[in-house]
Amino acid sequence: MMALTLAEHSNEPVDILKVLKMLLIHDLVEIDSGDVFLYDTIVNHDNTEAERKAAERIFGLLPTKQAEEFVAIWEEFETGDTAEARFARSMDRFEPILQNVSNQGGTWTEHNVPYDTVMDKTRKIEHGSKTIWDFTETLIDDSVLKGYIKKTDQE
Amino acid sequence: MMALTLAEHSNEPVDILKVLKMLLIHDLVEIDSGDVFLYDTIVNHDNTEAERKAAERIFGLLPTKQAEEFVAIWEEFETGDTAEARFARSMDRFEPILQNVSNQGGTWTEHNVPYDTVMDKTRKIEHGSKTIWDFTETLIDDSVLKGYIKKTDQE
Repeated sequence: MMALTLAEHSNEPVDILKVLKMLLIHDLVEIDSGDVFLYDTIVNHDNTEAERKAAERIFGLLPTKQAEEFVAIWEEFETGDTAEARFARSMDRFEPILQNVSNQGGTWTEHNVPYDTVMDKTRKIEHGSKTIWDFTETLIDDSVLKGYIKKTDQE
Repeated sequence: MMALTLAEHSNEPVDILKVLKMLLIHDLVEIDSGDVFLYDTIVNHDNTEAERKAAERIFGLLPTKQAEEFVAIWEEFETGDTAEARFARSMDRFEPILQNVSNQGGTWTEHNVPYDTVMDKTRKIEHGSKTIWDFTETLIDDSVLKGYIKKTDQE
């Protein structure tokens, strides 16, 4: 729903059906392989090899033509170098920010994630949508003011 | 994902983007208004008036053009007389059947729903996809054999 609603703010025109397919397929694979916490300091969030195995196992249950289409869309999302992948990835990164903002800092507060790390991990939103990144920056600044995110010089 | 995967079995060609929008919008409205149990004997599952209020409230938060588009798509799903609405409604009806079948009868067993009621409430799947309805019938027959659903003459 968020991607449908915000598609007009993509930096580049996107095929929204492809964006929806990417997000649905990507989430299904993450459900199966186990999502890695974005701010995990040990395991990389982009745990692509485990996800590739999951994708091949799940979509291998389908007729070959569908399996090939879904794996290709998943690959395109992971690689991230088409307009649709850039926008879908920015949606995937933006959504947990809204959750944290509406939940007293959520995982930022819980794991004491520093400001620089939040900025570093979320800045990719800009590649999909400059407008949404500008808005994200205001949300992050506001979260600093509210004490949900600490700047290093505040510690 | 189910709608994406099964779209080729629709009785009529469908615009799959519209089907996805219908299912996403319909579910969002149901989350807000509260879904009514399909086999509820007091409140009608198609509690359209409560859902209409929810739809207008939620989509009223959006710019007018988007609000109008989303409410129109929700209406089309509820009215159910386009190819996309027929297929989306069959997906919405088919999905809980898969849940019950994979969960020892699920809500059928829990609420002791009789065979005739299950058939009556699920037969609409046929309007969206004859193929999926034929498969549903085999799942229901199998659920009778497993004792998940009781035929009246078995009681």
